Amino acid sequence: MPKQIAVIGLGLIGGSMAMALQGFEDFEIVGVDNDPATLEFARTHSAAHRLTSDAGAAIAMADVVYLCLHPGAIVDFLSTHRQAFKPGALVTDVCGIKTAIVDAAAVLPPEVDFIGGHPMAGKETSGIFHADKALFQGAHYILTPRPGHRSEHLDLLRRIAAHIGCRDVVETTTQKHDAIIAYTSQVMHIMAVAVCDDPDLFECRGFEGGSFRDCTRVAALDVPLWTELFSMNASALTKVIRNLEDNLRSYREVLERGDTAALTQKLAWSADRKRHMDLE
Amino acid sequence: MPKQIAVIGLGLIGGSMAMALQGFEDFEIVGVDNDPATLEFARTHSAAHRLTSDAGAAIAMADVVYLCLHPGAIVDFLSTHRQAFKPGALVTDVCGIKTAIVDAAAVLPPEVDFIGGHPMAGKETSGIFHADKALFQGAHYILTPRPGHRSEHLDLLRRIAAHIGCRDVVETTTQKHDAIIAYTSQVMHIMAVAVCDDPDLFECRGFEGGSFRDCTRVAALDVPLWTELFSMNASALTKVIRNLEDNLRSYREVLERGDTAALTQKLAWSADRKRHMDLE
Repeated sequence: MPKQIAVIGLGLIGGSMAMALQGFEDFEIVGVDNDPATLEFARTHSAAHRLTSDAGAAIAMADVVYLCLHPGAIVDFLSTHRQAFKPGALVTDVCGIKTAIVDAAAVLPPEVDFIGGHPMAGKETSGIFHADKALFQGAHYILTPRPGHRSEHLDLLRRIAAHIGCRDVVETTTQKHDAIIAYTSQVMHIMAVAVCDDPDLFECRGFEGGSFRDCTRVAALDVPLWTELFSMNASALTKVIRNLEDNLRSYREVLERGDTAALTQKLAWSADRKRHMDLE
Repeated sequence: MPKQIAVIGLGLIGGSMAMALQGFEDFEIVGVDNDPATLEFARTHSAAHRLTSDAGAAIAMADVVYLCLHPGAIVDFLSTHRQAFKPGALVTDVCGIKTAIVDAAAVLPPEVDFIGGHPMAGKETSGIFHADKALFQGAHYILTPRPGHRSEHLDLLRRIAAHIGCRDVVETTTQKHDAIIAYTSQVMHIMAVAVCDDPDLFECRGFEGGSFRDCTRVAALDVPLWTELFSMNASALTKVIRNLEDNLRSYREVLERGDTAALTQKLAWSADRKRHMDLE
């Protein structure tokens, strides 16, 4: 009997993951979802080798479980099903925040290993209907192993990352992940929606260039998902937003003073930081 | 003798424009620059039909003059050469701000027509070494004709816009251009540099996704150019920065209060604006 990977939740990320996992070593991929339309789409698009709505049965048989639900639902799932995982199994997730998830995994019995994961890929759309087996190509795959994790499971996740096309695997702590992700991802989304709150938004057709299209692309976000991601990382995120407000105000004040020399100096400093970042 | 278009200043935009203009009707393209290395590069890459460092001689013969200098240099050029243009000529520019430029064109004699222009294309690099004849493909070409302009010149610019591959031509006033461009372009650049001012910039390697790369792409900007563009449009730009600060603070305060319902409502409103913008 082949080893099994159960993917719980076939949304954009779970659906893409189930598709991308196919062909990984000799694993059978089992897709799990409650929604009949999602299961039907998954069936007609061969998103997994097998499909079911019975999560309990799937995880009882699975050697690896990928939790691809919204963060609050992952916390609930871990609590509800904590005794139902196969002993010796690896449980992992794909969620954009890590501290709340890994803390919730403390309910698991000691014979079940949990390693938090975050493949940094996404789209400004939701649901399996937009899933793409190439979604993870070129993405960083961040892992936050707990003390005492089993090293063969970390090796397994590294082989999966390579199979699905990730650029590299980055190991870090849950705290560092959440602090940095507030900066590199969450505040990008807050900026995009804040830009769309400008009263001139609908005046700008015909005047938008690449930078505007790039910045606002992620504003059409999945509201329930991002409400959870932002709320469950509010402490790190509000610190980054405050930094950004301060940095914007500093530019505004130099412009209001008409201090061209100071503006030149500030721009040179910032542009140099960006070039320095690109070089290394 | 063929009609001539003189391109004054063969930087990224001027060099790309000279390349893109070749083949436009029966015009001969004359490239003008002071810098020997730029002229040599232009010669070996056939950036124009003819090349010279003598701007005065070039504009005396040119039926169309494209001013592709930095904004302050355009103002100086118009003042210095105001009597040297060929009577009946069209003078235009490619500058990212329009009020200061069109105001400066008031020094021209009445037999020289000036129509301000802004093809909305660019790159985060400078100089003819990065020029690309396809740079304007798909871009909006904004024109700000003055009262009393000659309609055949507007027609000519429309045909040029089509020839160089622009998506459309948008006619507006200099005031509206500068107000909207502060929002759709200038503040995107201010955001990019402000993001790079965050103390965590160099911590973020390995944690950056598409939205971070997109947002910060334009931060490595041409400092002298953008110092002028920002300074010469400071009134409109500071208003937009203040709006953005307010909108960011509003998101931060909801997060600090832990008011999930208000966060959901705000995100739904903003995301809906973005989707509405895409639909029309």
